[in-house]
Amino acid sequence: MSKLSLAETAELSMLLEVSANIKPGNIDRFHDYEDTKFRHFLASAVLARDVFERVPQMTLGEAMYAAVEHTNGHTGGNTHFGAFILLLPLIKGKGIAGACEAVLRTTVEDAVRFYQAFGKTQVRVNREDEMDVNDPASITMLREKQMTMLDVMRYSSETDMVAREWTNGFALTRKAADILKEKDGADQIQEMFLRLMAAYPDTFIAKKFGYARAVSVMERAQLVRAGGLSLSRFDEECILGGVNPGSLADICIAGIFTALLEGWQWDC
Amino acid sequence: MSKLSLAETAELSMLLEVSANIKPGNIDRFHDYEDTKFRHFLASAVLARDVFERVPQMTLGEAMYAAVEHTNGHTGGNTHFGAFILLLPLIKGKGIAGACEAVLRTTVEDAVRFYQAFGKTQVRVNREDEMDVNDPASITMLREKQMTMLDVMRYSSETDMVAREWTNGFALTRKAADILKEKDGADQIQEMFLRLMAAYPDTFIAKKFGYARAVSVMERAQLVRAGGLSLSRFDEECILGGVNPGSLADICIAGIFTALLEGWQWDC
Repeated sequence: MSKLSLAETAELSMLLEVSANIKPGNIDRFHDYEDTKFRHFLASAVLARDVFERVPQMTLGEAMYAAVEHTNGHTGGNTHFGAFILLLPLIKGKGIAGACEAVLRTTVEDAVRFYQAFGKTQVRVNREDEMDVNDPASITMLREKQMTMLDVMRYSSETDMVAREWTNGFALTRKAADILKEKDGADQIQEMFLRLMAAYPDTFIAKKFGYARAVSVMERAQLVRAGGLSLSRFDEECILGGVNPGSLADICIAGIFTALLEGWQWDC
Repeated sequence: MSKLSLAETAELSMLLEVSANIKPGNIDRFHDYEDTKFRHFLASAVLARDVFERVPQMTLGEAMYAAVEHTNGHTGGNTHFGAFILLLPLIKGKGIAGACEAVLRTTVEDAVRFYQAFGKTQVRVNREDEMDVNDPASITMLREKQMTMLDVMRYSSETDMVAREWTNGFALTRKAADILKEKDGADQIQEMFLRLMAAYPDTFIAKKFGYARAVSVMERAQLVRAGGLSLSRFDEECILGGVNPGSLADICIAGIFTALLEGWQWDC
């Protein structure tokens, strides 16, 4: 097989993530939700590819806007917003070290484009948020406060583990990649996902159901790892409760991308 | 969602085909084979995209060689050889009418490139075949007999329903697309596949087990349509017997591509 380009690697990461066998609570190869289907994730990956190819010619704000604009509009709603927040700097920087530099270079205009992208999607936000993406005044505020796209991520980092990756050196992406690299083969994705779930409360769950629920889901994942609950039972439990660790899924994609760049073999 | 490019449409067709719910005997969303996995089909689709983008600048022989070279080498063996035989002229011609013209323009050099591509893969061939792809003398013979790539397809058309598409105006591709267009939504792919299985003996099965077996599989599909056998039971029966209608799967991909170009909506 030919060496994969960065854009090919990013697209493959999205497809490997969504087609992993069991990622409790999330859409995977064996699960659809009623509105969002497995197929919407495939289509989103196909459509994102064109933007991935053009990342070197774009700023991160522009790339984010293009990715959302190009992939949005199928009936499946938001599929990969958080994944783009992570993949775009990782592509631009050709890995974590470069991504850390790339996010430092973002500008106020990138922040504005990011907010405009936000407005095109249906991403879950905290309602009490001062900077409401649906409020045009937020854009004015970004310009007045001279906030860069990195500043926006700093602002969200307390309540959003995806945004937090921009501020902490892509720490969980690093962790995810390291877990994958313990063992070649795509089956390791399921193991990696469960270990992240058992170690970190998912902020997507927290936004939907509150922080306590996110912690209790984490504890259930710990019970699975300790052998006290079967993985498939835990999965059912999450699906029935509408509990989907969507932020960890985004980090999982970024981890697969990073591991692939660093030589991890999915195919063995 | 943005209007899809030809290359995006082709890649999405490959992904929608392999992730359809039940295509009896074939790898689908819920089935792997032991050696070839669902994931190999995803990776092959990701890798083929680059060649799809470059089809306008290549001859069909060159495109075939590039597609096989770029996608081959994962441990899953041949995944999309037949699909490329159909998709590449359909992309070049922007649909069936143009594809029929494109195949008429193929040259002896295209035939040579096609044979070289063939040699890189592990496609099932009839052992008694006079023009053995693994025999370097075949290339000499192509040149001596001045056979174009279309002539090669004519040569194979009796025993290979994919090759036959080049010689009969993409008749089954047309049929597949027409069945899809009866009803929007990706669920129609399963219906289309079963109807093709019930109407045509698959030549991939015929090469593996003999023509009589291909006919008996067709008859079992007819029984499913008549309500005398459940789809899932038929699927199990095929899987247990190692019976995979791979040629019909290739035609299914070409049918999805054609239907999408003609306005069929997968997402509803």
